[in-house]
Amino acid sequence: MAERSDARPGEVATELPASHDAGVYFIGRIRTPFKSRAECPRNTAESDALGRVELDPRFAAGLEDLGLYSHVWLLYWMDRARRDLIRQVPAHLGRPRGTFALRSPVRPNPIALAAVELLGIDGATLRVRKVDCIDGTPLIDIKPYFASTDSFPDARRP
Amino acid sequence: MAERSDARPGEVATELPASHDAGVYFIGRIRTPFKSRAECPRNTAESDALGRVELDPRFAAGLEDLGLYSHVWLLYWMDRARRDLIRQVPAHLGRPRGTFALRSPVRPNPIALAAVELLGIDGATLRVRKVDCIDGTPLIDIKPYFASTDSFPDARRP
Repeated sequence: MAERSDARPGEVATELPASHDAGVYFIGRIRTPFKSRAECPRNTAESDALGRVELDPRFAAGLEDLGLYSHVWLLYWMDRARRDLIRQVPAHLGRPRGTFALRSPVRPNPIALAAVELLGIDGATLRVRKVDCIDGTPLIDIKPYFASTDSFPDARRP
Repeated sequence: MAERSDARPGEVATELPASHDAGVYFIGRIRTPFKSRAECPRNTAESDALGRVELDPRFAAGLEDLGLYSHVWLLYWMDRARRDLIRQVPAHLGRPRGTFALRSPVRPNPIALAAVELLGIDGATLRVRKVDCIDGTPLIDIKPYFASTDSFPDARRP
């Protein structure tokens, strides 16, 4: 599944550790209208797209009471991204920036974080709005969104 | 490292998949004043504690420009939690709730998500405020906080 892009000028790769330290399960898939990375919106703020989260039925009981929340976090695994670039030149920026100062899929652990609107739950499937990832992306977690811990409307960015 | 707690009445375990689907690297450690789970605040909103994020030096270049942000996400691996409970009875709730409707460490992929204030960066170390985890917790990612995608002050919860 690796879709390696060559490094651009200014990009720096690091040597990854020799082995993994822990393992993740893919617990479902995210269904979206986007068939390639080129079709994906840049992030959830630029998306109004409807999607579905198809959870492995063995975990369906884990959704109990999730419908009490208006928004949920999806954590998903960006399985097509290389993991060794530590300094990147994003197309929209045009100059290098550290990987941890970007929300790029390219990072040592390619985990994305997306807050989406929860529209409904049917069995082991969530209906959501504001999806931004490729159709079929592996899901690794669902969490309720807590404004008390997660919302910082005045957070500063460049 | 497994610190297994027995299931409480109303709790349900599921059979986990036979093998992992992907691997994570521990890219650093989070240093906090809390030596046990009992000492930890319930979440970052109830914490004013100072902490340090000690990144593996091989990834230090990844911090370039992160100081432009006031808040960052820490993703960390809760390596003492069991992974098979799909319905839990949190002490503060006193009745069962689905794992994905909780921010409990107990979940199929024990990844925690914490927005903290970024106070400064010294080499491969971040100084942060509002930490809530046990001292030494393995770090798996750092991301900049974007109010545009991450802040929903009116998100509804029960």
